[in-house]
Amino acid sequence: MNSERGAASSGSPDSHGRFSYFGLDRVLHEKARLGILTSLVSHPEGLLFNDLKQLCSLTDGNLSRHLSVLEEADLIEVWKGVQRGRSQTMYRFTHEGRERFLEYIRVLERVVEDAHAAERQQQENRETLGRGWSPA
Amino acid sequence: MNSERGAASSGSPDSHGRFSYFGLDRVLHEKARLGILTSLVSHPEGLLFNDLKQLCSLTDGNLSRHLSVLEEADLIEVWKGVQRGRSQTMYRFTHEGRERFLEYIRVLERVVEDAHAAERQQQENRETLGRGWSPA
Repeated sequence: MNSERGAASSGSPDSHGRFSYFGLDRVLHEKARLGILTSLVSHPEGLLFNDLKQLCSLTDGNLSRHLSVLEEADLIEVWKGVQRGRSQTMYRFTHEGRERFLEYIRVLERVVEDAHAAERQQQENRETLGRGWSPA
Repeated sequence: MNSERGAASSGSPDSHGRFSYFGLDRVLHEKARLGILTSLVSHPEGLLFNDLKQLCSLTDGNLSRHLSVLEEADLIEVWKGVQRGRSQTMYRFTHEGRERFLEYIRVLERVVEDAHAAERQQQENRETLGRGWSPA
């Protein structure tokens, strides 16, 4: 960024796309799906529909819809089985899905680190505007 | 969660809503807006439209749209000024917006920590399914 752009430029070595976070795949980034995926990564043996519903505080309809999106993206796999005489559906990560999720988490980590770095630098040090600015 | 629910239950002390991440406000969580907000928190003196556009790799239309959403939510404030003879528009966090963003970042941090904890526990230790499960 060119520091001649005015008082509002930072002069820091921020490059083009520095805050674009391309790795935040929207399939994984959506709030409810992020909860589902974090539940599943914490339960590699898989989770039943009702367990996911409770852990993520989702309705049947919402959970079903998001699980379909995740399955279509090959992030999770679905298993059917009979447990204690009842037909059950179980969900768990595919191998590739787990890798993609952990890649996504690394991008999320960069966002958190960027925000923390800014927080540390600015500790109660909010700058005043240069002359010539007024509320829009 | 009740460990009697079957082989797919974890037995861990996961409570209702453990992975719901209520604090992930959708206004802040949307991918492009997250980039804009992280740019702004790193530049407390404010950023010009064109700087934001470059830092976040967004088109004029997309950037305008997301800035409007952020302004309507009182997360950012807009200033007009003349810099080097040109009319400019400058954006920066409101005080409350910065607080809300840092709260949001703390929730994001929990997501990252939850994923890391799972990653550490499972190091190449992917469990096989119990008997009675087949692909759906």
